[in-house]
Amino acid sequence: MNADFLDECVAVLSRTPETLNALLRGLPAGWTEATEGPGTWSPYVVLGHLIHCEKTDWMPRAMIILEHGPTRPFDPLDREAQLKQPQERLLSELLDEFADLRRTNLDKLRELELKPSQLTLMGTHPALGPVTLRQLLATWTAHDMAHLVQVSRVMARRLKPEVGPWADYLSVMK
Amino acid sequence: MNADFLDECVAVLSRTPETLNALLRGLPAGWTEATEGPGTWSPYVVLGHLIHCEKTDWMPRAMIILEHGPTRPFDPLDREAQLKQPQERLLSELLDEFADLRRTNLDKLRELELKPSQLTLMGTHPALGPVTLRQLLATWTAHDMAHLVQVSRVMARRLKPEVGPWADYLSVMK
Repeated sequence: MNADFLDECVAVLSRTPETLNALLRGLPAGWTEATEGPGTWSPYVVLGHLIHCEKTDWMPRAMIILEHGPTRPFDPLDREAQLKQPQERLLSELLDEFADLRRTNLDKLRELELKPSQLTLMGTHPALGPVTLRQLLATWTAHDMAHLVQVSRVMARRLKPEVGPWADYLSVMK
Repeated sequence: MNADFLDECVAVLSRTPETLNALLRGLPAGWTEATEGPGTWSPYVVLGHLIHCEKTDWMPRAMIILEHGPTRPFDPLDREAQLKQPQERLLSELLDEFADLRRTNLDKLRELELKPSQLTLMGTHPALGPVTLRQLLATWTAHDMAHLVQVSRVMARRLKPEVGPWADYLSVMK
């Protein structure tokens, strides 16, 4: 990645809500509530996690780096916060909320008008130690794609008992 | 999966073009041409493969089952056909073509008004042997999700050198 690092991250980050919307809105619950087994996440739960991260992880941590530098460690992220919420909200509401939060966070990011030199600013992760603002923004972007991998993998694997001998050709089933 | 098997497959199949559109249209080429290393596929190449499959794999094979049953084996699929084409077409053209082909194929599928009993009809895969129409339709659907896994994994891994210590938390990087 070159000098356009920030633009390239935003290009992906700005597309994720619509991607999940196109994939999940209106899908039968059999798909959106499918998991890979006990203790694993459904697309519905992943969406709750992405919402929680928008609220507490990426931009709040970027602001800690910009305002406090490495002296103030980030607040720990509760990766399972969404499992502690009542699972009563409609998936469509979660999709709307995620899109709103992402739009607001990207507006905030753009308003910062970050200079390339600021991407090297340091923060302190509560478990991982020293990290840069650039690493944080890259991780935000990679995290979107990692969860898109997860959602589509859960959906593919739901069909494992259905594909018969073709399972041999689908490495995702393994 | 229950009696709604066909509807549940179509629910996913009908969403894939818009999902890929939302994810990929207008993205910088650094993303759409990224691979996981020599011999692996970029999102651009995956899209060419999906187009080739719409033309030669799923519905053509379904029609062979319905018209000939197991007596006529399917034509073999060239999994790398898209690599033999000139890679000159715009990604936006590929997205449009994929959406058109998928729409036409799903229209054709709906017009067949398949009864549940027809899903057990047999065909002959040139390498895998006996398969059912139901397995073919499940594989079509799982194949979409498998390639969505691939595209999002390629994109996540492009950021592997950028995420620093967070790589430990992102299993997709391994």
